[in-house]
Amino acid sequence: DPSLKVLTLNSNRDLAGEIAEKIGIELSKSSVTRFSDGEVQINIEESIRGCDTFVIQSTCAPANEHIMELLIMIDALKRASAKTINVVLPYYGYARQDRKARAREPITAKLVANLLETAGATRVIGLDLHATQIQGFFDIPVDQLVGVPLLSDYFQEKQMDDIVIVSPDHGGVVRARKMADRLKAPIAIIDKRRPKPNVAEVMNIVGNIEGKTAIIIDDIIDTAGTITLAANALVENGAKEVYACCTHPVLSGPAIERIENSKIKELVVTNTIPLSEDKLIPKIKPLSVAPLIAKAIIHVHEERSVSQLFD
Amino acid sequence: DPSLKVLTLNSNRDLAGEIAEKIGIELSKSSVTRFSDGEVQINIEESIRGCDTFVIQSTCAPANEHIMELLIMIDALKRASAKTINVVLPYYGYARQDRKARAREPITAKLVANLLETAGATRVIGLDLHATQIQGFFDIPVDQLVGVPLLSDYFQEKQMDDIVIVSPDHGGVVRARKMADRLKAPIAIIDKRRPKPNVAEVMNIVGNIEGKTAIIIDDIIDTAGTITLAANALVENGAKEVYACCTHPVLSGPAIERIENSKIKELVVTNTIPLSEDKLIPKIKPLSVAPLIAKAIIHVHEERSVSQLFD
Ligand SMILES: Nc1ncnc2c1ncn2[C@@H]1O[C@H](COP(=O)(O)O)[C@@H](O)[C@H]1O
Ligand SMILES: Nc1ncnc2c1ncn2[C@@H]1O[C@H](COP(=O)(O)O)[C@@H](O)[C@H]1O
Repeated sequence: DPSLKVLTLNSNRDLAGEIAEKIGIELSKSSVTRFSDGEVQINIEESIRGCDTFVIQSTCAPANEHIMELLIMIDALKRASAKTINVVLPYYGYARQDRKARAREPITAKLVANLLETAGATRVIGLDLHATQIQGFFDIPVDQLVGVPLLSDYFQEKQMDDIVIVSPDHGGVVRARKMADRLKAPIAIIDKRRPKPNVAEVMNIVGNIEGKTAIIIDDIIDTAGTITLAANALVENGAKEVYACCTHPVLSGPAIERIENSKIKELVVTNTIPLSEDKLIPKIKPLSVAPLIAKAIIHVHEERSVSQLFD
Repeated sequence: DPSLKVLTLNSNRDLAGEIAEKIGIELSKSSVTRFSDGEVQINIEESIRGCDTFVIQSTCAPANEHIMELLIMIDALKRASAKTINVVLPYYGYARQDRKARAREPITAKLVANLLETAGATRVIGLDLHATQIQGFFDIPVDQLVGVPLLSDYFQEKQMDDIVIVSPDHGGVVRARKMADRLKAPIAIIDKRRPKPNVAEVMNIVGNIEGKTAIIIDDIIDTAGTITLAANALVENGAKEVYACCTHPVLSGPAIERIENSKIKELVVTNTIPLSEDKLIPKIKPLSVAPLIAKAIIHVHEERSVSQLFD
């Protein structure tokens, strides 16, 4: 279908290649480089006039570079008369500043949404946006894919007995519940409490984990503080073994060291954020979201509903 | 005046400090750092409710980092109920992609203008925007300051005889003319021509330079190819000595080496882009635009016209 074009920028070249392969097309010819002074230079090397264009880019680190690449690509596609500009954001960076937690804070999740629309995006395909409210930050259609089925299927195939799905905080209970439903397992919740200011948090576990295989699920693992403390607390409280999983492996700062040194047996992630060399450790198992995204792209292009498929 | 707030980001801290000093106020307390994953974290540490705020930031290299800092600061100021958000852009990066020179190119100068407005900027104060048309890319007021008076005054004080002001290309003639008027000097133009594709350019000099002190003026010096070739051509064609000047010392890639090895006696620049350690060579003389910008800020705050002052 010559009116379907998939383009990649620099954040997720491998994933983009896989997506194109799944769809059965070639990636559109384009290059994203830098001028001598570091400004982004984009060349789109084939006509995209009248086409449905899909740009694959996670706004993962270096987030500012990746966002500017994306905005400039959208601008170029708009001026080149693309029919639609669909931004595929496997990982939506800046999502954690999604409210004013303190005075005079920015709300970057809304800012970036506005920037994408201003540049000319006509639709967004996201995957596990940090808060479902972020959909409402856009005035264009947003399809939100979810990682739970992919992660659940992986554990399903392991055929483990007596598992419990653990949410590392109260914000993640809905996600844990969804995974538990798929795996027909009970849930537990890590209930963190700080008894007094400047006193260490107390990790209280709500739910029965004694002798069970615990699977902690989160959307983002960044410095891995929360998840590794949770894993150790689970083991101390009688869990037989602890697995962890997340959709977006940000893994910054001390994350890898913490994971290596933790009681986590295996950390299952997806490739919404590619793992750099130093993060390819045996404990971390990446799964590919390419089939999921490829399906979403085909549905959008054929004007079929995406939400029914993936919720 | 407590309703006037000047804030700085990371591109031009020294310049911002100088500007505040000229105005006679302290910089507003704020910090711009990075979260562990590299996302920008901004804290504004004093109330700016109802104030005229002025944010000093050049979108020089690393341009993408500096643009995102600026957009996030604007968002934070907007949400903190600033009365006006005046973006002071000593150097406006991405300005050279200001038209579609080839098919499917972006127009980043317009994109960045849109991004600044979307974030919430209410006015822009720029300095030698690469093309005067860029003013029209904004739907908010733009004050355009110019570097020619500052650069001219420097040469005026040298009391040199028999000078000629040289434009390195046809696009820069208006600027050279302005400097020549101030210094009561004639002008010359480097008239580059490529006789055939893939044949070296011929440097033809229009105007009399024989035995004269030539001062080449440009707005941006990036890799310094144009200016150093021009300088050498001037000397070969009989100029007594060659000075060069520009407002924005981008100086990327081979620029410093080329300048060192060229016939340029002195390169006079401004601090719209700070010179990093490796660029502080004796041949390069930086002048400060702080007095000019301080004046502009006071005029805007007092709702007096800026354009009459500086054109
Ligand atoms: N890139 C980031 N890295 C670490 N913390 C962040 C980042 N962005 C936002 N935050 C903070 O994380 C908190 C929100 O996290 P959450 O409660 O998980 O939604 C807010 O207080 C933010 O200040
Ligand atoms: N950051 C940059 N570095 C080098 N060249 C650029 C940059 N941005 C734009 N250009 C190119 O410079 C040309 C415009 O320069 P000018 O003729 O001086 O306005 C265009 O053809 C652009 O493709």
